[in-house]
Amino acid sequence: MKIFRTVRDIQAYTKELKAQGKTIGLVPTMGALHEGHLTLMREARKQTDIVIASVFVNPTQFSPNEDYNAYPRQFDEDCQKMGTVPVDAVFHPEPAEMYPAGYCTYVNVEGDITKKLCGAQRPGHFRGVATVVTKLMNLARADKAFFGQKDAQQVVVVKRFVADLNIPTEIVMVPIVREESGLARSSRNRYLSPEEMQAALVLSRSLRAGDAAFRAGQKSVAALRALVKAEISKEPMAVIDYVDIYSFPALQPIEAVNQPALLAIAVRIGKTRLIDNVILGGDETCC
Amino acid sequence: MKIFRTVRDIQAYTKELKAQGKTIGLVPTMGALHEGHLTLMREARKQTDIVIASVFVNPTQFSPNEDYNAYPRQFDEDCQKMGTVPVDAVFHPEPAEMYPAGYCTYVNVEGDITKKLCGAQRPGHFRGVATVVTKLMNLARADKAFFGQKDAQQVVVVKRFVADLNIPTEIVMVPIVREESGLARSSRNRYLSPEEMQAALVLSRSLRAGDAAFRAGQKSVAALRALVKAEISKEPMAVIDYVDIYSFPALQPIEAVNQPALLAIAVRIGKTRLIDNVILGGDETCC
Repeated sequence: MKIFRTVRDIQAYTKELKAQGKTIGLVPTMGALHEGHLTLMREARKQTDIVIASVFVNPTQFSPNEDYNAYPRQFDEDCQKMGTVPVDAVFHPEPAEMYPAGYCTYVNVEGDITKKLCGAQRPGHFRGVATVVTKLMNLARADKAFFGQKDAQQVVVVKRFVADLNIPTEIVMVPIVREESGLARSSRNRYLSPEEMQAALVLSRSLRAGDAAFRAGQKSVAALRALVKAEISKEPMAVIDYVDIYSFPALQPIEAVNQPALLAIAVRIGKTRLIDNVILGGDETCC
Repeated sequence: MKIFRTVRDIQAYTKELKAQGKTIGLVPTMGALHEGHLTLMREARKQTDIVIASVFVNPTQFSPNEDYNAYPRQFDEDCQKMGTVPVDAVFHPEPAEMYPAGYCTYVNVEGDITKKLCGAQRPGHFRGVATVVTKLMNLARADKAFFGQKDAQQVVVVKRFVADLNIPTEIVMVPIVREESGLARSSRNRYLSPEEMQAALVLSRSLRAGDAAFRAGQKSVAALRALVKAEISKEPMAVIDYVDIYSFPALQPIEAVNQPALLAIAVRIGKTRLIDNVILGGDETCC
C-alpha cells in the first residue's frame, strides 16, 4: 500500500495511472476508520481498478468551537485496517500541504441545501467540505468517489457541486453501516461512555419508529416529526438538535411524504453530537 | 470542426479523447474573436494534440450595469476564423446549459488579488470568471488552458485557483497581440468610433512611456504611475479608471520595481472601458 504525503507525489501517481487507462476510485476520510469507511473502500474495490483513500482531518470544515484539535488521529491503526481491503494508495497530507501560505480559493454551494439540517448549526461546514472534496477529486483524478449515506446532506451537497462544476467524477452513495445494536458507525462514537453508548441507541430506535409509522401509512411530515421527537425525548440523556424531513435528494420542504424523503436527526448525548437518518420510501430497509 | 452545444456531448467527446491518450488544449473565449484569440488557439495547436475553443458570453462575470446583453455575438464569423487555425472542436452552450435551474455553486478566490485593479470596479467579476473557467476546464478535461496577457489579472487569478484547487490543468499565458498602431486587440475595440480609436492609442503610448522610463532607471512606483497618468491626461477623451503597479505575479503592493511588476491601466474612451498592461522587467518587449 503506497502512502503519499505531498500534492506533487499523488499527482504524479494518478497521472501515470490515467495514462495506463486505469479507473480510479476515491474514498475521502478524516481517518479514525471504522467499518463504515471500510465498506466504502470495499465498494470502491469492486467498482474501480485502483482504490485511493485519503486520511485528512480537514480544518476548513470545522467551526472554531468544534472538535478539530480533539478529533481522533490514529494513522498507523487506520493503515492496518485499509490493508485488509486492500487499498492501493493512501493520501495523508499535512494541513499546510493542502492549504499553503497564500491559499484563498473556496468552493461555495450557495443554495439553501447547505443552510438546513447540519448546515444551520455549522456555518461554513459545507464550504470546507466542498473545497476539500474538490481538491481531493482533482488530485486523485477520480472516476468515482464514494460517500456514506450517514452524511446524507453531505452526499447531496457533493452531488450538487460536482454537477454544477462539471467535475468528471461519479458520486456513489453507500448505505449506512451499523453496530448490531443499531447504532450508526461513527468516528465520534468513541467519545461515548458505556452509559452514553446505551443512550445513543435512541437515534436508530426513533428512526425505526418513524419509518414503521410511514410504512403503516402515515405520510404527514408534521406527524412523523412529532413521533420521532417523542421517541427521542423518552431518553433523558438525549438533547435534540434537529429532527427534519425533506424531499430527497432535492432537500426541499414537504408537507407529506409522497416521494422519497430524508428523515434526518441530530442528537447530543452528553458532549457528543451524533447524526443518523433513513430515506423514507427509499430502496434500503431502515436501521 | 466539431461543434458541441451540450455538456453531455462535450463530456463524451473529451472522455473518448483521454481514453485515446490525447492531450487537450483549451482556449476559453467569449467570442467576437480577433487576432489575440487566434494567437491563443495557434499556441494551443503547437502545444497539444487537440484544440478545443469555447465561445460563451458568461453571464456570471458581468455586473448588472455592464454590457452583457450588448456584448458582440457573431458565432458564424467566429467559426470561420477558428477554421483557419484550425481548431478541432468548439463548445458553444446556451447560458441555461451552463447554469441550469437550481445551479448554486461558485468558485470564490477570496484573496486580495481579486479586489484590486479590475476587481475593485467589477465586484463579482472574478467569481464569475473562476466559476466558468473551472467548469470549462472540467468539461474539456484540459491538459493546458491558454489565456492572454492582456487580462493579466485574470491570468493571476486563474493560476491561483488552479493551484489552490489542485486542478490538473497547466495555465499558459500568451503575450498581448496588438494592432500596428499599438492598440491592444480587444473585442470591445469595435465599440470605438474612428475618433475614439485614435484617442485609444493613448493606452499603449502611455505604457511605452512608463516602460521607457523604467528601462532608463526609474524604479519608483510613485514616479512611474505619475508619469503614465500624465501621459494619459494629454488625451482629452481619456478618463482614467486606474493606473497601478503591483509585483507580478503575486500582485502585491510595492514601492520600487526591483522585481518583475505589472503596470496595468484601465481607461474609458467615451463609453468604452479599455485595459492594457506591460510587465516591467519581464521577458517580453513592451507594446
